[in-house]
Amino acid sequence: MAESMLGLKRSHRCAEVVNAPLESEVTVMGWVQKNRNKGGIIFCDLRDRSGILQIIFEEDECGSEVFNKAMKLKQEFCIAVTGLLKKRSGAFNESLETGELEVRATGLRILSESETPPFHIEEDSKTKEELRLKYRFLDLRRPDLQRNLMVRSKVATTTRNFLAENGFLEIETPTLIKSSPEGARDYLVPSRVYPGSFYALPQSPQLFKQLLMVSGYDRYFQLARCYRDEDLRADRQPEFTQIDMELSFVDVDDVLDVNERLLQRLFKDVLNVDVKLPIQRMTWQEAMDRFGSDKPDLRFGMELKDVSSVVANSEFAVFKNALAAGGSVRGINATGQAGMPRKKIDALVEFVKSYRAKGLAYMAIEADGNIKSSFAKFMTEAEIEGLKAAMDAKPGDMLFFAADTNKVVWDTLGALRVELASQLGLLKKDDYRFLWVTEFPLLEWSEEENRFKAMHHPFTAPMDEDWQYIDSDPGRVRAKAYDIVLNGTEIGGGSVRIHQGDVQAKMFDVLGLSKEVAQERFGYLLDAFKYGVPPHAGLAYGLDRVVMLMVEADSIRDVIAFPKVKDASDLMTNAPDRVDDAQLKELGLIIKSEQ
Amino acid sequence: MAESMLGLKRSHRCAEVVNAPLESEVTVMGWVQKNRNKGGIIFCDLRDRSGILQIIFEEDECGSEVFNKAMKLKQEFCIAVTGLLKKRSGAFNESLETGELEVRATGLRILSESETPPFHIEEDSKTKEELRLKYRFLDLRRPDLQRNLMVRSKVATTTRNFLAENGFLEIETPTLIKSSPEGARDYLVPSRVYPGSFYALPQSPQLFKQLLMVSGYDRYFQLARCYRDEDLRADRQPEFTQIDMELSFVDVDDVLDVNERLLQRLFKDVLNVDVKLPIQRMTWQEAMDRFGSDKPDLRFGMELKDVSSVVANSEFAVFKNALAAGGSVRGINATGQAGMPRKKIDALVEFVKSYRAKGLAYMAIEADGNIKSSFAKFMTEAEIEGLKAAMDAKPGDMLFFAADTNKVVWDTLGALRVELASQLGLLKKDDYRFLWVTEFPLLEWSEEENRFKAMHHPFTAPMDEDWQYIDSDPGRVRAKAYDIVLNGTEIGGGSVRIHQGDVQAKMFDVLGLSKEVAQERFGYLLDAFKYGVPPHAGLAYGLDRVVMLMVEADSIRDVIAFPKVKDASDLMTNAPDRVDDAQLKELGLIIKSEQ
Repeated sequence: MAESMLGLKRSHRCAEVVNAPLESEVTVMGWVQKNRNKGGIIFCDLRDRSGILQIIFEEDECGSEVFNKAMKLKQEFCIAVTGLLKKRSGAFNESLETGELEVRATGLRILSESETPPFHIEEDSKTKEELRLKYRFLDLRRPDLQRNLMVRSKVATTTRNFLAENGFLEIETPTLIKSSPEGARDYLVPSRVYPGSFYALPQSPQLFKQLLMVSGYDRYFQLARCYRDEDLRADRQPEFTQIDMELSFVDVDDVLDVNERLLQRLFKDVLNVDVKLPIQRMTWQEAMDRFGSDKPDLRFGMELKDVSSVVANSEFAVFKNALAAGGSVRGINATGQAGMPRKKIDALVEFVKSYRAKGLAYMAIEADGNIKSSFAKFMTEAEIEGLKAAMDAKPGDMLFFAADTNKVVWDTLGALRVELASQLGLLKKDDYRFLWVTEFPLLEWSEEENRFKAMHHPFTAPMDEDWQYIDSDPGRVRAKAYDIVLNGTEIGGGSVRIHQGDVQAKMFDVLGLSKEVAQERFGYLLDAFKYGVPPHAGLAYGLDRVVMLMVEADSIRDVIAFPKVKDASDLMTNAPDRVDDAQLKELGLIIKSEQ
Repeated sequence: MAESMLGLKRSHRCAEVVNAPLESEVTVMGWVQKNRNKGGIIFCDLRDRSGILQIIFEEDECGSEVFNKAMKLKQEFCIAVTGLLKKRSGAFNESLETGELEVRATGLRILSESETPPFHIEEDSKTKEELRLKYRFLDLRRPDLQRNLMVRSKVATTTRNFLAENGFLEIETPTLIKSSPEGARDYLVPSRVYPGSFYALPQSPQLFKQLLMVSGYDRYFQLARCYRDEDLRADRQPEFTQIDMELSFVDVDDVLDVNERLLQRLFKDVLNVDVKLPIQRMTWQEAMDRFGSDKPDLRFGMELKDVSSVVANSEFAVFKNALAAGGSVRGINATGQAGMPRKKIDALVEFVKSYRAKGLAYMAIEADGNIKSSFAKFMTEAEIEGLKAAMDAKPGDMLFFAADTNKVVWDTLGALRVELASQLGLLKKDDYRFLWVTEFPLLEWSEEENRFKAMHHPFTAPMDEDWQYIDSDPGRVRAKAYDIVLNGTEIGGGSVRIHQGDVQAKMFDVLGLSKEVAQERFGYLLDAFKYGVPPHAGLAYGLDRVVMLMVEADSIRDVIAFPKVKDASDLMTNAPDRVDDAQLKELGLIIKSEQ
């Protein structure tokens, strides 16, 4: 029963009628949100991406043919309505932009009908995500999801315009590239022309953007699709988008400067939020010491304090052993939480186990000054006073301590700090706190592989003053690397790159790549480095995460039109799927189980 | 011997010094184009993406340390120079934007040295493309390639801004999707989670953009990476970029209108070329009849004329047989070419063979009115006069005729027309002639598969008035499809889509897809069509081709930063390549030859 829209032109989107004069004729098109007959008058809420508009069908006004058609309207019918724009005769609806208006219909076409949808289209749907993802085309009609994707679109436009204004060229890099086993797992693409050979999908355009600098493009950017074949977490997708950039003839400050102006513009233009510049900077060492994290959430305090010296002579075995093994004892002060029930404390002890903490020591300073603690009995009076002083503890406060290697202590207290803040309601989503974390270690030791790995990637430049230690004490070398952190989430990161062939070769060596392997994998980069390389640096943002934080969503699936689920499948299309044998034959591939 | 740029800031790009005051100190960075010592003065041409700037090192001015360093400079060294901006003391160089200026150096740092490059960096390089592609990072330093990529960047920015201003949302669609065997060959991506299952890389975002319309996004666009695993031609790449859009609640005119405004803006803002609107429109039938092509080049005339009626009773077997078989006889008039040498004519006869023409009849009307012709002896005087009249032939003209099925005649004369124009130098690259071709046939008969195939794709809407013939005479049904043609190249195309479930089901039926197969392949689309689908339409441009025409390049490889060659390999990185066995094992794949 679909009618054509031949000869009909939409005059406004639903919410745009607020710009039309009263009493003018308008033609609107959209979906029936609801349709009800109240005393012989049909009230129809029409929805499009701009909002909802009330349509009134009265038989006197629209004639019986239109009225009878209107009687048949059901939710999600797609219709076109012509009528007169009027002030509402009934009560205004303040929750709608068009809440003072209504259209008194004179014409109606049913563009297409709808079966009853498997779930109602409404904000903050309570329908199970699995069902909504199967019918993603319906779920995407939800006004909240539509708003998210509109914000995403605006973020993309604003970013591109800002970067173009600042001398960046948008250059596309290939996505059928050479596989590089360093890093995460690649998605592979079999070649038909060369059976047995494969392309990889890029984990990032890293090498290509560096080559563009070698080629003299000076400033590059791209909103680049990237791929990682990893097991998915809540904030990961097999394909994701990076705001990717690279600049020549710059040092750390230049990159940070242009990027904080970009962030300021984005938050102003898209959210009307003011970001004060300069954005705070903190070295990695300070971030770990004060917040136990390389992505500190600055929306609240509860900083870590190192109390190792206070308990240096303690008889408490946990502290003693940790210190003896070269570790530390640190604490945080959960102000005013002395009354925390035992059950909650136990849950926190459980919580920190996933950070490899063997335990969590606590000390409640009750209102009357009494101490309730898991370990006070092992401490001297002086030590207890020392801890209280070091932790700036007042009656009513609750102290938590961890003792272990620095890494475990940081991870434990860093996570505990955020968990407590979350429980205490301190994490306001519309309070945006940015932070640059700088001077990351160049290398980190991999226990699994018994070798140093690059903390960022093998192309990151060392700090000039530290390079002298690359042989004697590699772990001491800091990198010209930086992350941009928003509310405890790393939304982007980058570095100055190595631009000297000899330094790059040394890095590969330190990372355990033989000359032959380095040449085989990155030969073209090493070749390029022979022909005049400019100093260069770059940064990449996870666009999905940035938008997620901007729209205050809990999952990146809420800012991606067609996301995949944990097993990397698409519930709507059923991808991945079996393919025709002929396709595999052309690729020279056999599926193992079917051998 | 790389020096750091610590403490040094670039003040201008090379060509940007034209904006700096004379006698001011500038700091520029770039690559040495050439360096020569002329009578104790060093003239160094410094190059960056903006252009070339002359640097003068005189020992008196820069001191001996800098001067000695400058003596060592070779081509492609990457350097930073500080100095005073002056009017040139020597002759001006009018070919350079900075040709009246020079920088008299006071400081120099060598940021990195360069080996002698395998070829000289210069415009219109004569170096073999294979070598240039192996060293693409050097080839990309060529000013002409840099200009191409800068135009491409501007095209992208301008397109996006125009579309955003016109209510389009930029929405990203997935690239790990379900394989669809209809159409070209898919690139496949093996799934690790489900060994034996595969994703496909999209040939276009077609279904997703239609679903976005179903979801109410109203106007969508994306500069989308697309993939086709086909054997490559000069203007094809395994991965390419589409300017992709879709609109709801529109008909053909709305799509054409917004797109010709987009083209107008693009050519104005990027090339300063005025495109007059409206762009000419022509039905497919008219295009074939007049130009023998569905993408007519309008830069010149030489239109086809149907002379079937003139030779209806001819005794000439070639004409007679073609007409008897239901074909036609048509000709073109190569004005003023009566003197074409026999050798050239023979070459044209050879040329048209690849269009399945069995021959090419010609008739030269010499200056004195005499006829020189391959077939005049078979014609009556009246027929010859009739042909001359029909072809509007004057003394000095050369007529070519083809007789065969309509398709062969069109293809032959359509190609011949362009070939002649090319030989006659009529194809000026900076003369931009746009054309809309409309009302394409919905279906075309596939001799190979002995069935109808969709001429555009299976989602194209038929013209309302023709749908009645879908059973009785499917070939007669025209589609609401349109192509945008520029100078004989199709740069984009699209259609109004089917938005009624029953029509879509019928189309699958006509195309020989059983209900089961249609459900298996496009089930989610058919599902979506149950829930209120808006009338919608779209269009996609081949961005690479658009840019190629705009920069007057001969190959799309000249507008892509890192292109692939005919066998779909990348000569710089050697992709595709073998991968580790462990990677294949995880995917559950075996390479056939290694079984």
